[in-house]
Amino acid sequence: MEAAKQNESRRVLAVDIGGSKVLCGVVDGTGQVLCSQGEPLDKDTGLDGLMSAVRRCGERVLQQCNPVKKTQVGIDAVGATVPGLADAKRGLWVYAPFSGLSDIPIARMLSEMFGAPAAIENDVNACALAEMRFGACREVRDFLWVTVSNGVGGAVVLDGRLYTGAHGNAGEVGHLCVEEDPAKALRCGCGRDGCLEAMASGTGLARRYAEPGVSAKDIGARARAGEPKAREAMARTGEYLGRAIADCVNILNPSAVILGGGVSQDFDLFSDALVRVYRARVFARANPDVRIRQTALGYNAALLGAAALGLDVMSSRIEPNRAESIKSRGE
Amino acid sequence: MEAAKQNESRRVLAVDIGGSKVLCGVVDGTGQVLCSQGEPLDKDTGLDGLMSAVRRCGERVLQQCNPVKKTQVGIDAVGATVPGLADAKRGLWVYAPFSGLSDIPIARMLSEMFGAPAAIENDVNACALAEMRFGACREVRDFLWVTVSNGVGGAVVLDGRLYTGAHGNAGEVGHLCVEEDPAKALRCGCGRDGCLEAMASGTGLARRYAEPGVSAKDIGARARAGEPKAREAMARTGEYLGRAIADCVNILNPSAVILGGGVSQDFDLFSDALVRVYRARVFARANPDVRIRQTALGYNAALLGAAALGLDVMSSRIEPNRAESIKSRGE
Repeated sequence: MEAAKQNESRRVLAVDIGGSKVLCGVVDGTGQVLCSQGEPLDKDTGLDGLMSAVRRCGERVLQQCNPVKKTQVGIDAVGATVPGLADAKRGLWVYAPFSGLSDIPIARMLSEMFGAPAAIENDVNACALAEMRFGACREVRDFLWVTVSNGVGGAVVLDGRLYTGAHGNAGEVGHLCVEEDPAKALRCGCGRDGCLEAMASGTGLARRYAEPGVSAKDIGARARAGEPKAREAMARTGEYLGRAIADCVNILNPSAVILGGGVSQDFDLFSDALVRVYRARVFARANPDVRIRQTALGYNAALLGAAALGLDVMSSRIEPNRAESIKSRGE
Repeated sequence: MEAAKQNESRRVLAVDIGGSKVLCGVVDGTGQVLCSQGEPLDKDTGLDGLMSAVRRCGERVLQQCNPVKKTQVGIDAVGATVPGLADAKRGLWVYAPFSGLSDIPIARMLSEMFGAPAAIENDVNACALAEMRFGACREVRDFLWVTVSNGVGGAVVLDGRLYTGAHGNAGEVGHLCVEEDPAKALRCGCGRDGCLEAMASGTGLARRYAEPGVSAKDIGARARAGEPKAREAMARTGEYLGRAIADCVNILNPSAVILGGGVSQDFDLFSDALVRVYRARVFARANPDVRIRQTALGYNAALLGAAALGLDVMSSRIEPNRAESIKSRGE
């Protein structure tokens, strides 16, 4: 009970930086989002514009959370997620795919901006952290997180810890080849053909459906309304995901696979096809009872991941290296 | 210097139990095989016959190692590798594929037989341990080991530790599907078609070559002599391996991939094809400079893995659980 109360009394500012908007929330130690605010980002916003938007959005949510005194609510830490490549230990946003910015000391900048220690992580990895702390994987030590959105990304949790690989890029499930047929394989942003990201992302789904102006979300709505072409397009999404997930499961031998991101909101429309192809390709004897599920955290997964990062800064669960880099900011 | 001497003075009995023979060696702490002996196994040998062969082979090598006194050399520990499924923590040989035996308390049996603490591991995992302790991966914290032999198996080392997955089956690279074409896909022992094991193992190579009585080793010799059909068959082995390895690298983001097992002795005959397909499929930006190499440990990899297990029993590097299960044998 005491621990639960302590968790409730913690306040972190969670910042989810996306390609087209910033989302800020005040989150307590139990994962309750107490308040949240969004701020759109111009496509061509540079670093100054981005950081101004983060400041405006963050200050607004801190005030919203403390309406009586008309001042900002106090926070214990800041956690932020960024798209692209992040070096969590050094607090660096290594590469920002939309703007092309690189090597931004974003953790230090946020720490100075909001007067609290800050930690950052790649948005996909952060979703896995959220799943571990607040979601379905609190008791699961080995799982794969897959974001299916405009792109497809993955994060790997092994032995209860985020595993990021030798170069920080483990779980790049989006670049598994899932379409060998040159007549069907779409060109991927990475330059190769038939990658999961090219075939099964929201963008890939819309390209396969091939009606100008019709988005992945529209296709989901049409499939729900029973349109055969849309239902077929959604089923193919499931087949591609099933294939890639089976390969990942064969290699990682996890207990669960959790899907998040916008396209995963239509999980029910493609899960039958996913499971059918998965079952045909997985080495079942070695991988019994792998749960494949849509996240229960919905669109808040990355924001809650940012909150988890902030809470980690406060607690001793933080890795020594990260603690050091945070400490060194005070010099 | 002192540590090096201490390593040299250690003696472990390494036992490599295979499908058709037992190999025993006395190995020192630096990985020097001081003596070794083999003993063939009848295909239908039950557990008693197997353990008798292990005893004969082990006693012979212990005497060989101490010829002056005509007694057995003293050993500090026993390490053993077994084919099939092993539960290293509990010292159990869970499933022996050739004999169909299951749940054999093999570590306890070996400990009683040779009067020293014993540890066991699956043979493929043990090869990865050997590579970490004695091979090319002493400084590598993240790598994939692939055994290409009568079957194909894999072992995953992450953050400097053997990662075995939620059910002890991580790295099952042999059951990745690498041949989609039904006309070419061979049936795998797991019941599915086109698995890496079915296509690229020694058995798969011989099936593809399709001349009665011609083994994988013979095909290697013919390829070396320049026979086009054999060269083509070897190149296909490389293509299948390249495809599976690229998928593994995309998911695991390792620093190195090490190939062992009988077929890997012909690495030079298929490495060009392997690297070509690997490069076409890997997400290169996320995975720069992955070294793909044939093991330098040769046919001794599993025996040295067994030695590494024995050395681990002696040192504090042993996992607490394993130490407990060893202690409990003394009750």
